[in-house]
Formats: sequence, structure tokens, C-alpha cells
Amino acid sequence: MRTTLLIHCPDQSGIISAVTGHIHARGGNIVYLDQHVDMQAGVFFMRLESDFEGEHSSVQAFREDFENRIARPYAMEWHMFHSGQKPKMAIFVSRYNHCLYDLLSRYHSGELEVEIPFILSNHNDLRSIAGQFDLPFYHLPVTKDTKQEAESRQLALLAEHQVDFIVLARYMQIVTSRIIDVFPNKIINIHHSFLPAFAGAKPYHAAFERGVKIIGATSHYVTEELDAGPIIAQDVTTVSHSHTVKDFIAKGRDLEKIVLSRAVQLHVKRKTMVYNNKTVIFA
Amino acid sequence: MRTTLLIHCPDQSGIISAVTGHIHARGGNIVYLDQHVDMQAGVFFMRLESDFEGEHSSVQAFREDFENRIARPYAMEWHMFHSGQKPKMAIFVSRYNHCLYDLLSRYHSGELEVEIPFILSNHNDLRSIAGQFDLPFYHLPVTKDTKQEAESRQLALLAEHQVDFIVLARYMQIVTSRIIDVFPNKIINIHHSFLPAFAGAKPYHAAFERGVKIIGATSHYVTEELDAGPIIAQDVTTVSHSHTVKDFIAKGRDLEKIVLSRAVQLHVKRKTMVYNNKTVIFA
Amino acid sequence: MRTTLLIHCPDQSGIISAVTGHIHARGGNIVYLDQHVDMQAGVFFMRLESDFEGEHSSVQAFREDFENRIARPYAMEWHMFHSGQKPKMAIFVSRYNHCLYDLLSRYHSGELEVEIPFILSNHNDLRSIAGQFDLPFYHLPVTKDTKQEAESRQLALLAEHQVDFIVLARYMQIVTSRIIDVFPNKIINIHHSFLPAFAGAKPYHAAFERGVKIIGATSHYVTEELDAGPIIAQDVTTVSHSHTVKDFIAKGRDLEKIVLSRAVQLHVKRKTMVYNNKTVIFA
Amino acid sequence: MRTTLLIHCPDQSGIISAVTGHIHARGGNIVYLDQHVDMQAGVFFMRLESDFEGEHSSVQAFREDFENRIARPYAMEWHMFHSGQKPKMAIFVSRYNHCLYDLLSRYHSGELEVEIPFILSNHNDLRSIAGQFDLPFYHLPVTKDTKQEAESRQLALLAEHQVDFIVLARYMQIVTSRIIDVFPNKIINIHHSFLPAFAGAKPYHAAFERGVKIIGATSHYVTEELDAGPIIAQDVTTVSHSHTVKDFIAKGRDLEKIVLSRAVQLHVKRKTMVYNNKTVIFA
Repeated sequence: MRTTLLIHCPDQSGIISAVTGHIHARGGNIVYLDQHVDMQAGVFFMRLESDFEGEHSSVQAFREDFENRIARPYAMEWHMFHSGQKPKMAIFVSRYNHCLYDLLSRYHSGELEVEIPFILSNHNDLRSIAGQFDLPFYHLPVTKDTKQEAESRQLALLAEHQVDFIVLARYMQIVTSRIIDVFPNKIINIHHSFLPAFAGAKPYHAAFERGVKIIGATSHYVTEELDAGPIIAQDVTTVSHSHTVKDFIAKGRDLEKIVLSRAVQLHVKRKTMVYNNKTVIFA
Repeated sequence: MRTTLLIHCPDQSGIISAVTGHIHARGGNIVYLDQHVDMQAGVFFMRLESDFEGEHSSVQAFREDFENRIARPYAMEWHMFHSGQKPKMAIFVSRYNHCLYDLLSRYHSGELEVEIPFILSNHNDLRSIAGQFDLPFYHLPVTKDTKQEAESRQLALLAEHQVDFIVLARYMQIVTSRIIDVFPNKIINIHHSFLPAFAGAKPYHAAFERGVKIIGATSHYVTEELDAGPIIAQDVTTVSHSHTVKDFIAKGRDLEKIVLSRAVQLHVKRKTMVYNNKTVIFA
Repeated sequence: MRTTLLIHCPDQSGIISAVTGHIHARGGNIVYLDQHVDMQAGVFFMRLESDFEGEHSSVQAFREDFENRIARPYAMEWHMFHSGQKPKMAIFVSRYNHCLYDLLSRYHSGELEVEIPFILSNHNDLRSIAGQFDLPFYHLPVTKDTKQEAESRQLALLAEHQVDFIVLARYMQIVTSRIIDVFPNKIINIHHSFLPAFAGAKPYHAAFERGVKIIGATSHYVTEELDAGPIIAQDVTTVSHSHTVKDFIAKGRDLEKIVLSRAVQLHVKRKTMVYNNKTVIFA
Repeated sequence: MRTTLLIHCPDQSGIISAVTGHIHARGGNIVYLDQHVDMQAGVFFMRLESDFEGEHSSVQAFREDFENRIARPYAMEWHMFHSGQKPKMAIFVSRYNHCLYDLLSRYHSGELEVEIPFILSNHNDLRSIAGQFDLPFYHLPVTKDTKQEAESRQLALLAEHQVDFIVLARYMQIVTSRIIDVFPNKIINIHHSFLPAFAGAKPYHAAFERGVKIIGATSHYVTEELDAGPIIAQDVTTVSHSHTVKDFIAKGRDLEKIVLSRAVQLHVKRKTMVYNNKTVIFA
């Protein structure tokens, strides 16, 4: 059984030795270790993948043992995942289909190891794509008046389907703290600019107006401040005076879908950790 | 003789035909033509390189003829340059040497076809590098009190040496309108961020704080609004959580010098046109 | 009516003036012109987009006029296309679905302005995807013994559906001259390496073995020599010692689909010209 | 005192635990750890940076202790470096100056922490640049007849100055096994192509001929087979039909100098390990 351990704690001497010694003593073979120290903040981060020969029954024992002997003494926050646990991913969309298609085709070919309990949208336009992939589609229109009610329904759906994380695949509604608080660092958004440049609405128009020579896309965890959450992945492409806003949008589509899928993949593979509104990505 | 023609004017039908017909009729062979129409603004841009067999003496005749028959009827702003005209480039620096070295080594090897009448600095640190390349070095310290006087001396030096354009190779002083007005779209700056992100001071620190995954550098013409002039060239490089601010700075140095030299080269080869605070780059 | 003109001919003085003058005289407004001279080969290339107010009925007249007055005197090879002509694109696939999904989702959203008369495969695996998009799917298995017969059926299908060009979206069979001769510079392949490095089979394995730090993908027109046709588009991504061959393949999928779609788009928009086994891309 | 430990050995369970436990027990604080397992080859690689409070006098004791208790039982090949040890770097050049300038300006500004005992060339062209930086310059012409003798002089110079590693900064002579055997994985070359594409002479001409859309540069350790040694760093830039071979060469210069300096920096910081003609880069 392959086990992934994510740890962060106040930095001090001896952590790596203690953790790796513990795993080794319990018969684990460490196949991957990555660590990082944020010197400024004095925080230690580690990600380990280990192979254990033991049964699943022994997992709970390892958990308690690790908590008592290692995690507590070092004041660790930690998570342990096992191979075979497929996270449940809900997708929120509006009208653009490129990110949705990209996620679903990766899902369909087995590249993205998740379950997709449903796709939700404030519009009906993309229902047929859900149908192409035999996935449930919920149409929840959102107006100023119905926003609260729509959120309640969203929360109910998310709870009912035991959703682990949410992907906003060009969902053009603001997600409020009612949802964010339930899914902290578990909502992944794609913003169609190279953040922090051009946060907010119409970033391609703003980029065109400014005359930049490179445009970008940014995937980040959603926090209450708009477009200001921890960045997971970014990428860019060149543009020139000969490109219109429409060209920016077309070039941007390719960026958006690749960057969003990359971020989702990192999240699914437990390669992201969040601290101080920044990410540690053990890619 | 190779001639470069830069034109912009209100867009209308028939401009290309008129210009190319005129050149052809005067014995010019067009070896390169690039054009662009800003549909929104209704402005037409063109850059032509043509070979003429004629003598230099005929240049003035061509000029007058073109002005009367083509430029005036189409309300053109236009410039004509001849091969062999080496522009005079002044370099302003402070304490960082990487951009200066990059420019001077290109100059020294003949890659950058300019004359460098002098290097000017508000510090004395880089005097020895000017010495390495046998170039005059002026040390003009700038304090709040001496700013006006320093500018006057700068303007005098620029006039005396008939400088065509100025390169701010990490010059850490604000250039005011007194200088800018004399050198409109003729002062090239390098800013160490991917503008418009992180304009102003300490962009690498700000980028580190925000947790971006890509950093950049931007070369632009200097206008009165700080870091807001027409962008000539940009480039980026990836960073990760494992990089410190010091690493950002080190990686950024390579970006800065390459991007600045690229922008300078485009300017020297008359491949840039400015309109509405944006550039058309006929690269 | 928007008209696109593609021209190449032996280089000489006066071509641009003659072509643009001709179009202007017939009431055409040139909205885009790009030209290139291959100095070594002495060949002139030009692409023009012009708006004509005339009826479609006048197209034939323009054609004959242009042929007689311009094309023949300058020994041009030329093509003229009109907005609204959607080319018919056949897709050949084998077992990998990422390129197919990418093309079909662009087609479905209207981003790719083509008709797709059918998808053809030597395997049955991707039939369901054709079904997802309501497109005909032909399963034509190919063995050494049935190759000739399969090609005959392919040619029959291509003729029957009046196919304009073919996209090999990871089609794992060699296309022979029987097909190529009928579709010269009209078969677009994606090769999963940075050609000319790693031509032939298993390029990701070869790249891994060599220890490269960057992998790539190349889209090119198919010619008789394997993986040696004119290159339309290339892109790359970084890899490191920590990536396995499986990682190369996963990263490569993103490259392949983006590069292939980019090349197809360039072809569809008539932005490619082929000469001396190279392409001129007026992007 | 900051200590860097580079280790590789046959993979087995418990190595990380053993090494980190050993360092921790001797009072070392591990500030950086990166490891890699080549699953195919069954080889384990690790790089550790640790801070010790102890005196330099205790280094030898640590060495012997580590060798006996850890390295020998695990059959490790290992190296230990201490902060403050500046490696001695010889530079070989021919006629191109861009890589030389880039290295020397980094050296001069303290970015590159090496000593440069001398610059050696088979031509006299770049002597003045050595002079600009006050560095010894040896002119050793090489002809077919004098090759052996030149190599003997080179070896003598390298020995006399206790050179640690050699940088071939566009040195246009083949370095034979006489030199390579004395400096295994200690000679860094820059090849002006995206290897393995266009190995050998005139890569830019070959790239132009093939019509590629991207060109590259590769820095690698020199082995007996030409341009086939372990790759340290690569980078690429886009080109188009509008670029001549001369343009390729100009664009390539920027790539070459950046890629070579990046590889040299990685080597100097002990971030490279070589195995099976490939590198592990702990960047």
C-alpha cells in the first residue's frame, strides 16, 4: 500500500530524522521525500510517499502511533492518504466549455483519478456536454435575489454527494464565504490573467488595453478576497500588436484549460500545501 | 542604399498600393513590408525596407516628393532612416552591473550598432566598467536638493553629445518630464517585474509575498506615469516555493538583461512604433 | 466578402505594388498583408486579406482578371479563398483520445471552423467518442496483408465525402504515397517529439534515455519520408530527472493536443504555405 | 559551517533514515534535503545541506565516522563540500565572446563564486577581454600537427593552477580523452542546438535547413562521444520563416550564454550528479 504523508510544523532540528526513522521502524519504505523550510516564517513542510506491506487494518494503528510519538511532540499539522482513495470532485461551470471539456476528457481517459458526482451551472448551456459524458447536471440559476437560496442548494448537493473539492471551470459567479468556509483550500479557480495583474472582470480586455506582450492564466485556491487566494499554477503565452482582444481570448482558452487541469492534478495527487496564503507545490 | 520607412496615418483604402507604387516607380525594391491596422483606433501602421540604387544626394529629393505626393494626402506621420546611420545611445546606471555588461558586450562585439557617447550614473560604483570598455563615465549624484541641477547637467550632456536615445540600465532615479519631453518615446527602461503586476519599488519582494509561480521583466518607453509607458518587450521565468527573494533577484537578473537588450535592439533597428501608449513591434 | 489570397512566385521588384494596385483598382480594401522573401531561394510569398463589396458572382471575373494581368506575368502560383468556405476535415485516430477530444471540443464550440465528415480508425476504441459528438466513425483495421485494401477504402471514403484535408490525431499507421499523392501538404500529423530529435517510434522513451531536460511535440505536413515533412508548429515543456517515461507521456499529451490544434487552425485559416519542405506561417 | 553532502548508492530501504539520523546525532541541522530514486536502475541519490556548529578541525572526524558507519554499509559513493571552498574554473574559448563576457561579468559581480586562474584559447582574438578583467590569457594555437603538444601544455597549465573544472565557452576544438580522463564530469560544454537534434558542426544552418520553429542550446558534461555527454541544462526560443541563419545565430547567442552560465552555476553549487550518462539536478 502506497501512503502519502503531508506535514507542516514549526521548524526545528531533527524533524526529518524523526519522521523517516519512525516510518522505517514500522516497515515503511520511503520512495519519495520532498521537504521545504520557509526560513522567514520558520515553518517546515514535508511530503513523503512510502510503501507499506501491512494490511489496511493496520492503518489506524499507524495513525495513532504517529500522532502520539511524532506529530504531537513536533506540533505538526498532518494528513495521510492511501492509494486507491479517489477524491470526489464537483465541477461548477457557466457558459464556456473549454475547461469543462478538458477536465472531462482527462477524467474519461483515466488520466484524472477522481469521481465526478455532478456538474453544476448557473446556466443550461453546457447540459449537453454533461450528457456526452453521462454525468449528472444541475442547473441552479443565480440572481441577486436567489443567491442565498442557490448557495443553500449548492451546499446541500455538496454534502449529499460527499464532495471533497470543487473546481470552478470558468464559473462566472462569486463564491461566498458560506461555501468557502466549508471547503477551505478545496475550491480551485482559474482566472484568465497572469495574477496579480488584471484581477477582476474582463482581464483580456484590460491586457489588450495595456499593450502587454505576454498574457497568462492563473489557477488558485479560492479565498474571500477575489482573485487573491494561494496560487497553484500559472502559465503564459506571447501576444503582439497584431492580436485583437478576440485573439487574446482564443489564445487564453488554451492556457486556461491547461493551467486549470494542471492545478487540479496537483491537488488530486496531494502535491499542494497551503500556508500564509501561498502554496508549497511538491511537483 | 537600404532605406527604412515608418508610417502611421488614419486608415483608409489604398494606402499600401499608393506607397508601394510610389517606391516602385522611383526605382526602389521593397525587400520587407509589414503593416498593421488598429481597427478600434482606425489607424494604419507600416514599415518598409527598400533598396535604392540612387546616391545619397537623391535622398532629399525622395523625401520631398514622398511628403508632397503621399504623406500629406494621407495625413501620415512618417520617418525615413538610412543604413549606416548609427544612433547615439546614452546609458544611465546606478549600482547594478548586469544590464550594463550585457549592453556593453553586445556593443563591443558589434552586435549592437550604436555609438555610446557616455555612461552616466548617480553613483560611482560602475566607473571601472566604463573604463574596461574605454567609455566616458559621468558621476552625477542626485539628492532631493540637487535633482534640478542634476537634470540640467544631464540635459546639457545629452545635447552636447547629440544623443538620440537613452537607456536606463537599472537607473534607480525617477526621470522627470524635463528629460522625457526632450526624448519622447526615446528613453527605454527595464522594470524588474511582469508589468502591470508589481509596478513601483521592490517588485521581487512583492512577487515573493504574493506567491507567484512566474516572474518577469518588462522593457518600456518612459512616460510621466511611473512604469506605465508603452511596453516594448517582456519575458518571464518560472519560480517555486523553494526560491527565496534572493533567488528571484538572481533569476531576474538574467531576464532583465535579455529583455532590455532585446528592446534596445528593436529600437535601434527602427522596429518599434508608438501609438496610444502601446507599441507596434514589427519584429 | 472577405477574400484571402496566397501567392508565391520568383522574387522580383514590383510584385507588391502590382498586386496591391490591382486589388485597389477593383474596389478591394486590403485589411491584412504579410509577405516574405526567401533570399536564398529567390522566392516571394504573400498573403492578403481583402474586403470586397462585390457579389459572389463577380468572383470568377476577378479570378480570370488576376490570372491574366498579374499571376501569369509574374509566374505566380496562387490560391484564393472566400469567407464562408468551411473546409472538410477527416480525422484519423488509433487508440489515444487526447488529440481527438481536443479537436472535437474546439469543433463543437465553433472555435474550429470546419466540417468533419467522419472519423476513421484502425481500432474500435474511440468509437464512443465519435458517438459523443454525433460523428460518423469508420473502423478500418490495418494489417500487413490488408494495408492496400484499407488504403483503397480510405481513398474511397475521402473522395466520397469530398474531404479537403486529413488530420492524423495520433494515428499509429504509416500513411503511404497512395494517400499522400492525393493530399499533398494536406495531411497534418502530430509527432510526439521535438523534431528532428527522436524521429520514429517511442520518442518519449528515447528522450528519457538521453536525459534531455526539455521535451517537445511537432506538427507537420506528411511527406513520404517519415517525420520529415514541413514543420507547421512546435512546442516544448521542461522535464527533470524526477520524471519517469510515464510522466513524459503525460506531459507530452498536453503538448501534442495544443500543438496539433494550433497547426490545424493555421491550416484552416489559410495561414500556411509550403516551399522546399519548409513552411511559411503568416500567423 | 554549511556542509553539502552528495550521495549515491544502490537503493534500499532505510537510507534516508540512516543518513539523517547520523547527521542529527552529530549536531547537524539539515536545512535542505533532496533525494531521487532511479527505479529502473535501482540507484538512490541524495543531496543534503546541513549546518554544523563544530570547528573545521572536526570535519575530518565526521568524514571518517560517516565513511565507516554509513557510507561503507550502504556502498555509497559520496562527496562532502564546505562553504567557503571556491572551485578553480578554467575557461577555454576560441573567437566568440558572448559566453565569455557573460561568465566574466557574473564572476566580476560576485554572482559566480569561483576563482578563475586563467583563460585559454586557440586564437588570440579574445585576449583583450581577459585584459579587461585582469585575468591571465594563454594563447595555445592548435593544428593537426600540434594537437598532442597543445594538450600536454593544457594539462600542465591545468595541473599547475590546480584547476577543479573547465568551461568550454564556445571552444571550437575537440577535447580528447587525454583531458577528459583527468576531468571526468568536470568539463562543461555549450552546444548551440537542442541536443540530440543537430549534433556536430553548424547546428544553426542545419536547423534553418530543416525549417524548425524552435531552436535551442544545450550545456553538457564532455564525454568522448561528441555532443553526447550528460545534459545539465537546455533552453529554447522560437523562430519563424522570417528569420535568416544570421538571425538564428543572434538569437542563439542569448540562449547559449544563459544556458552555459546556468549549468556552470549548478556545477559550482554542487547541484549536479551524474549517472548512466544522465544528470540528476537538485536545483
